[in-house]
Amino acid sequence: MTLEKKIRAKVAYVSTVSRRQFLTTASGGIAGAAVTETALADSLADVPARAPGAPLSGRSERSEYVHLSRIPEAGPGLRNVDPSNAINSKTPLDKLVGVITPTDLHYERSHSGVPDLDPAKHRLLIHGFVARALVFTVNDLKAMPSVSRTHFIECTGNGWENWKQADPDVTVQNTHGLVSTNEWTGVPLRFLVGLAGKDRNADWMLAEGGDGAGVDRSIPLTDEILDEAFVAYGQNGEPLRPAHGFPMRLIMPGFEGNLHIKWLRRLEFGNQPWMTRWETARYTQLLADGKARQFQLRMETNSVITSPSGMMEIHPGYNRITGLAWSGHGRIARVEVSTDAGRTWRTAQLNEPVLRKAQTRFQTDWQWDGRPTKIVSRSTDEKGNVQPDRASFIAKVGTNALFHYNAQQTWSVDAAGRVRNALA
Amino acid sequence: MTLEKKIRAKVAYVSTVSRRQFLTTASGGIAGAAVTETALADSLADVPARAPGAPLSGRSERSEYVHLSRIPEAGPGLRNVDPSNAINSKTPLDKLVGVITPTDLHYERSHSGVPDLDPAKHRLLIHGFVARALVFTVNDLKAMPSVSRTHFIECTGNGWENWKQADPDVTVQNTHGLVSTNEWTGVPLRFLVGLAGKDRNADWMLAEGGDGAGVDRSIPLTDEILDEAFVAYGQNGEPLRPAHGFPMRLIMPGFEGNLHIKWLRRLEFGNQPWMTRWETARYTQLLADGKARQFQLRMETNSVITSPSGMMEIHPGYNRITGLAWSGHGRIARVEVSTDAGRTWRTAQLNEPVLRKAQTRFQTDWQWDGRPTKIVSRSTDEKGNVQPDRASFIAKVGTNALFHYNAQQTWSVDAAGRVRNALA
Repeated sequence: MTLEKKIRAKVAYVSTVSRRQFLTTASGGIAGAAVTETALADSLADVPARAPGAPLSGRSERSEYVHLSRIPEAGPGLRNVDPSNAINSKTPLDKLVGVITPTDLHYERSHSGVPDLDPAKHRLLIHGFVARALVFTVNDLKAMPSVSRTHFIECTGNGWENWKQADPDVTVQNTHGLVSTNEWTGVPLRFLVGLAGKDRNADWMLAEGGDGAGVDRSIPLTDEILDEAFVAYGQNGEPLRPAHGFPMRLIMPGFEGNLHIKWLRRLEFGNQPWMTRWETARYTQLLADGKARQFQLRMETNSVITSPSGMMEIHPGYNRITGLAWSGHGRIARVEVSTDAGRTWRTAQLNEPVLRKAQTRFQTDWQWDGRPTKIVSRSTDEKGNVQPDRASFIAKVGTNALFHYNAQQTWSVDAAGRVRNALA
Repeated sequence: MTLEKKIRAKVAYVSTVSRRQFLTTASGGIAGAAVTETALADSLADVPARAPGAPLSGRSERSEYVHLSRIPEAGPGLRNVDPSNAINSKTPLDKLVGVITPTDLHYERSHSGVPDLDPAKHRLLIHGFVARALVFTVNDLKAMPSVSRTHFIECTGNGWENWKQADPDVTVQNTHGLVSTNEWTGVPLRFLVGLAGKDRNADWMLAEGGDGAGVDRSIPLTDEILDEAFVAYGQNGEPLRPAHGFPMRLIMPGFEGNLHIKWLRRLEFGNQPWMTRWETARYTQLLADGKARQFQLRMETNSVITSPSGMMEIHPGYNRITGLAWSGHGRIARVEVSTDAGRTWRTAQLNEPVLRKAQTRFQTDWQWDGRPTKIVSRSTDEKGNVQPDRASFIAKVGTNALFHYNAQQTWSVDAAGRVRNALA
């Protein structure tokens, strides 16, 4: 059966009235026999009155029929909390399409709330192992050469929902909502480094935020990071929003979200890491043997099916499977989907363009026979890294750690078509 | 003089304190001599208190320091009108960065206001010269194979500000604000055509909107259009907003904005154009000889410098020039910038990725000597089309017409650094 036939058999409102039952008027309107045909008459009955709509505006709001919101959470399993208690706020991946995350729905993770800094007062200091210390305003940055790049940012804690526990009644927003993709605009780190005249032996950089928590992280100055990192002032075409670091933040493509320092106020150059509390206490990885790993910075290859996903309901017959894949190593090379709990796999289609260190949408069709099953996706990046299944991941990393969970996400489907979170 | 030296000489807050004047504490904080140094002490004095910021939220709002809005207009020169009198609403290109236009600031052009259609009731009818008539809901479309593509849409009237008159005191939002770029997601037209079983001799398609005006246009089914057009339900990752066609619109990459039928309710196939009033009265092009051209559908290669641009003020020395270029023929191949009123030109840098039928950001640096001059940009697309100067454009097209103005935009700079709209 062709895909077209499967869809025709499935789609509720397809009419099979032949064109010979139609008469069209010269003006393009529908008249005569066509209008009397039941299915079409039904479909056309709800045409809005030929009345004017709302006035034009300074800004386009969302439809009253569209309800999109992040979920403020206070930690794994602590959902829909009062926002003042939240430590993060998750992106509704189940309700989004394409690759770009709407600016106001990009996930949030903050250690001391969201300051709205006055850009006229805010400064970026560059100092340390440099020929000359420099201090910039955001307008200074805007006068420099810029890049605009579409990249994902992912909280290193993304996925913790399924590492330790298995709540079936969660959505993909709960399980994977700490990753988003925006177009970011700013000044390449290498340009700033050249401006300040970095010492040859300055191979570490400290980035410090201007929020209440003053989050600061040590960053190794590899060629990759010098080539790709930048200080951003723009997000999806507009100035950064306060939740995302206004007036400036560091972008570290492919690396832990917490390294993309928001409300950036200071870059210091040196020859060793600073061992801040964020890299000695908070963002270290407690391994199975009780030792802690520091500076595990890169986000691994990952993917998740966003539709059908947790708390959705499907019907037998044709269904479309779609989701997102991403890797801190570079481009996604392949996404495979299994609709039989991982026994067999087939390659999904990747939507073009497949961008480096950005989310990539995948899709495939699925004829569901109505029997209970499990669906799962598995990504492979251009460096050959393959997303592990959960058992392999835990066998390797254990369950002490909190970060860098990238195991395959399994959704169960019961005989009634209910889709639920499942551990595999 | 290197670019770095020019910027160092220009940027207001650059300090040239050497690193030997700094002492840093083990925690990465600044202590000792560094803090007492005047420039740095000044720059650090405004650090926000180490107090918590605002709570996290369901949606990230803009900073209180950022003011972005479209301008509702009632026609050329009729600006900032009451929105209920507006026929369009222009994108603030002077305040945006990167390529993506913020969703709520994508330009608006409407013939009967903005309906907010109920997606549960809205239907898309496909009929005419097809094997089977089809009726879809937006959920039906979401179950089909999809594409996500970043494309510009441009009102065919964009630029009319400078065709007939020369008001110096306008911004680039006034002169060019009827073009925007979003990531659009939807179902390829070719897939829908296959589903309905288009007759071999159906080489025209009528697309009709569900707004009060019922805008309908005849579209020739060339291979290019069959390959590239799609019915979109998504915009920058979220459902279309009502101003942009919710719940579904046609996307016609590279062609007149009015062909991207919003609130799409009907696609009819036939073997000749329908000659609707939109293509006999409204969107025809009155030529210099008094004849009218129909179906001039493609938008030509275009570009504009967005900074510095109208009503800005610059200072002698280093300045950064940036702008946007786009073409309905495909990719932008080259943008040249002149800072001496078109006498000499140099090639600007194009920001990657350069996408097909999307806006492309260009930039270059400029050392302004403080003398009055004019700055102008000129785009060339991959098909070799070169953006004409205004005199050549008018010599060819005349001034009767209203549409498809793509002449080079000139900004004058006076001795005080004031940037104004100028005809060249």
